[in-house]
Amino acid sequence: MSNVPTPLAPPTRVLLGPGPSTTDPRVLAALALPTVGHLDPYFLRVMDEVRDMSRVVFGTKNELTFPMSGTGSAGMETCLVNLIERGDRVLVGKNGVFGTRMAEVARRAGAEVTVAEGEWGRALTPQAFRDAAGGAQFKLLCVVHAETSTGARTEIAPLRAVADELGAMLLVDCVTSVGGLPVELDAWGVDAAYSGTQKCLSCPPGLSPVSFSARGQEVLAARKTPVQSWYLDLSLIANYWGSERAYHHTAPINMLYGLHEALRLVLDEGLEARFARHATNARALCTGLEAMGLELVVPADERLAPLTAVRVPDGIDEAAVRANLLAEHDLEIGGGLGPLAGKVWRIGLMGASSKRANVELCLTALSSALAVQGFAPRGDAIAASAAAYA
Amino acid sequence: MSNVPTPLAPPTRVLLGPGPSTTDPRVLAALALPTVGHLDPYFLRVMDEVRDMSRVVFGTKNELTFPMSGTGSAGMETCLVNLIERGDRVLVGKNGVFGTRMAEVARRAGAEVTVAEGEWGRALTPQAFRDAAGGAQFKLLCVVHAETSTGARTEIAPLRAVADELGAMLLVDCVTSVGGLPVELDAWGVDAAYSGTQKCLSCPPGLSPVSFSARGQEVLAARKTPVQSWYLDLSLIANYWGSERAYHHTAPINMLYGLHEALRLVLDEGLEARFARHATNARALCTGLEAMGLELVVPADERLAPLTAVRVPDGIDEAAVRANLLAEHDLEIGGGLGPLAGKVWRIGLMGASSKRANVELCLTALSSALAVQGFAPRGDAIAASAAAYA
Repeated sequence: MSNVPTPLAPPTRVLLGPGPSTTDPRVLAALALPTVGHLDPYFLRVMDEVRDMSRVVFGTKNELTFPMSGTGSAGMETCLVNLIERGDRVLVGKNGVFGTRMAEVARRAGAEVTVAEGEWGRALTPQAFRDAAGGAQFKLLCVVHAETSTGARTEIAPLRAVADELGAMLLVDCVTSVGGLPVELDAWGVDAAYSGTQKCLSCPPGLSPVSFSARGQEVLAARKTPVQSWYLDLSLIANYWGSERAYHHTAPINMLYGLHEALRLVLDEGLEARFARHATNARALCTGLEAMGLELVVPADERLAPLTAVRVPDGIDEAAVRANLLAEHDLEIGGGLGPLAGKVWRIGLMGASSKRANVELCLTALSSALAVQGFAPRGDAIAASAAAYA
Repeated sequence: MSNVPTPLAPPTRVLLGPGPSTTDPRVLAALALPTVGHLDPYFLRVMDEVRDMSRVVFGTKNELTFPMSGTGSAGMETCLVNLIERGDRVLVGKNGVFGTRMAEVARRAGAEVTVAEGEWGRALTPQAFRDAAGGAQFKLLCVVHAETSTGARTEIAPLRAVADELGAMLLVDCVTSVGGLPVELDAWGVDAAYSGTQKCLSCPPGLSPVSFSARGQEVLAARKTPVQSWYLDLSLIANYWGSERAYHHTAPINMLYGLHEALRLVLDEGLEARFARHATNARALCTGLEAMGLELVVPADERLAPLTAVRVPDGIDEAAVRANLLAEHDLEIGGGLGPLAGKVWRIGLMGASSKRANVELCLTALSSALAVQGFAPRGDAIAASAAAYA
């Protein structure tokens, strides 16, 4: 190339899409702390604290709990390739993009995959898994707690009994739930789980906390074949995060500084207060959207506080609305994926993004962007959302 | 946990180990820029510039060139799992940890691996590959350009002819070479290569630039089976980095800001000037170490400018020396790996860490740490290194 690009100067967006959420300035500042070595005694302490705080947000005492050096999808693949050996039978709940992805990753790991299909935009029921299983036994039951592609929340606790009936371990995708709604791996009897940093933890994308129960660890230890991925092999990585401190790969030091600060802010706020904040702002957003005359995708009792999917009204160019929000209001919301592409918007209120000012900005800006295309709101969204806060 | 940890305040180390190197303050500042969405028009431009600059440091016009969302080992695994299908024959050069790792990753991808063994601390010769091949044909010849575990540099250009004789593609590990010594993928006829960010690019660890030639891309397109890793499947990721911009996983936004700035600084300095700087400082370091009476592991003409391995003198506790350097001088150097564990130190002069002040600090601090254990230097290391600069 002939010219050297100029230094970056990104715009300051309000991030109300499906993730990344807005990064707290204190987390940004942590990212910029001086890099130390991955075996520096100081860094080993950082790792210990990250591990301890990860346990708190997962609701677990699991020894094997730490962030993988990749994004949420790397965490998904980590759990699947470590638990699966070729020919294993795996049952996957599929009611959105991320269940679909779990099934695909499991197949590539050599599993025989059975899918429990559910409607996009609805929770998966225990019965859906029983029906799909058809009386067979499985090694693993996989389910997405918070389906980021639709905004539906599936209850995990009742699935422990289903997994037991099937002789299966229980693997849960907690990417969009950790830090935004209650996650209780130990109380629910979850054997393996993964999350991401860029949703309700409000750290930039790049790491994926995972956690394995004692039973999950036993299955790892009893493998007959090596894990197909060396990079994601937990038996090797646990020797770095554990007391051995054996070098595996060079940990993403500065990203881990950021995650340390993000987790610290979660604990400082307190989990209960944080969940209440997410719930309150989501309720106010939903109330405002419905007051405008927009239709929500997910029934109220299956909705996800961190993410709300709303139907695009007939005759509206949804991409033009998003372009308008970005250009005129520095506001990002998300479009639909898969069968919902072009049909819905996805509005995230995650972590630092979940606050009243953002709810009001979103309702105001969306009204204005819709007005450009001639859509007349049914009622006063801001007044309705204000009432929801009262 | 009962108490929330305090905010981080890492020490400012001088990083002269095998990586991470010292991060330039401008790169740290870039990491802390406001997060935007992974499909934001602004971010798409950042991606384009990162891709273009990555091509420059790789010495290539390869279309498929971009950073993977993981550390250097993820880049290694990316190249291997995308090129290998089960049963493929792969020839791997092994003269250190990273060749050993390539062989292991290739086996896990289902390859039949043949190893061309070389001495640790020496370059691999074309003949070593011919001898190991024994007249057979291979799909892939794998070699490490700059062996970070020993400091030996293997000439890549002559291996193109060997690969052609074997009917093989040529895959090169450029983790410690990119940005520190000449890398010319196109001129050398390399089909696939990967690097890391935390060595001579002086960006924190977390990303791994990869590049595939047209032939490498054809092999990807002609695969009969899916890539075993979904996270690392280049056919999917290329749709995000290419003009389609199809969502695959959420890119590590802020890490990519950092890499953008790191690459910008490389281009701003100029590749030739940067390579000369690395060579000069390495020569001065080696001169100083030898003046002290220490023995270098690698013969002069096979040495790697970014990394110098030096033998631990008899009777010296090497770990105590490193602990002293860290505690008394805030200076990190590396220990040995594998058969060299306990026997060598590895001193990196990579990227922002490669400067005269660091050479002098290293020689002074090392003399002082050795003196604690009664080692008397043969001559004046600082004077000798100063002469090397003259």
